[in-house]
Amino acid sequence: MNALGTHVMLELKGCNPQLLDDLSYIKSVMISAADGVGAQILGESFHQFYPQGVTGIVAIAESHLCIHTWPEYGYAAADIFTCGTSIKPQEAAQFIIEQLESQNPSIVELKRGLLPQFVPAR
Amino acid sequence: MNALGTHVMLELKGCNPQLLDDLSYIKSVMISAADGVGAQILGESFHQFYPQGVTGIVAIAESHLCIHTWPEYGYAAADIFTCGTSIKPQEAAQFIIEQLESQNPSIVELKRGLLPQFVPAR
Repeated sequence: MNALGTHVMLELKGCNPQLLDDLSYIKSVMISAADGVGAQILGESFHQFYPQGVTGIVAIAESHLCIHTWPEYGYAAADIFTCGTSIKPQEAAQFIIEQLESQNPSIVELKRGLLPQFVPAR
Repeated sequence: MNALGTHVMLELKGCNPQLLDDLSYIKSVMISAADGVGAQILGESFHQFYPQGVTGIVAIAESHLCIHTWPEYGYAAADIFTCGTSIKPQEAAQFIIEQLESQNPSIVELKRGLLPQFVPAR
């Protein structure tokens, strides 16, 4: 059975706390992650929290990328949802892991939209 | 061990296809879902695809809500990420299920940020 999309969950422990609290850096990483895998960016919303932390969401034609950071724990939760087969969310995930300098990342990959009536284009 | 957040994945099969292709309706449902559980909306980005389909992402102070619809399959993929304990993502999930008239919904709940050093406030 084929899936409409792939949803990758990133548990990013052991990150560089300074990077996690830098709104412009986090935004740059997420936009570059989308661009780097050829995604078409449709919109975004990034926010700095006080005393610390950043939230960022990016809408792409192929679905989304999101991140939420807890600098106080050196931790970030990210997820990347892509539909179709042209975009490789795992590559965007690897880029985010490297850019946040995560020393202890975990990835869980979920298939979304397992539909018997869906037949992917060749 | 306590988690920083809860991430709820909604597989929404058997939805009303007309609702899934209605940008203003989908936006209203997602904003209402966030409002209804007391989330603080920080930003959003919604997009209509052609010939069909809608993508919507909502940044909230407590993390995010996202949805991607495939009217041609009567299917939508949604996810709700909330941190802290004041917001109940399951209630937002139930609201979305009802509003999209899903006849065959599935929910998977993931704990995010299981950190030994995190001690939640009482």
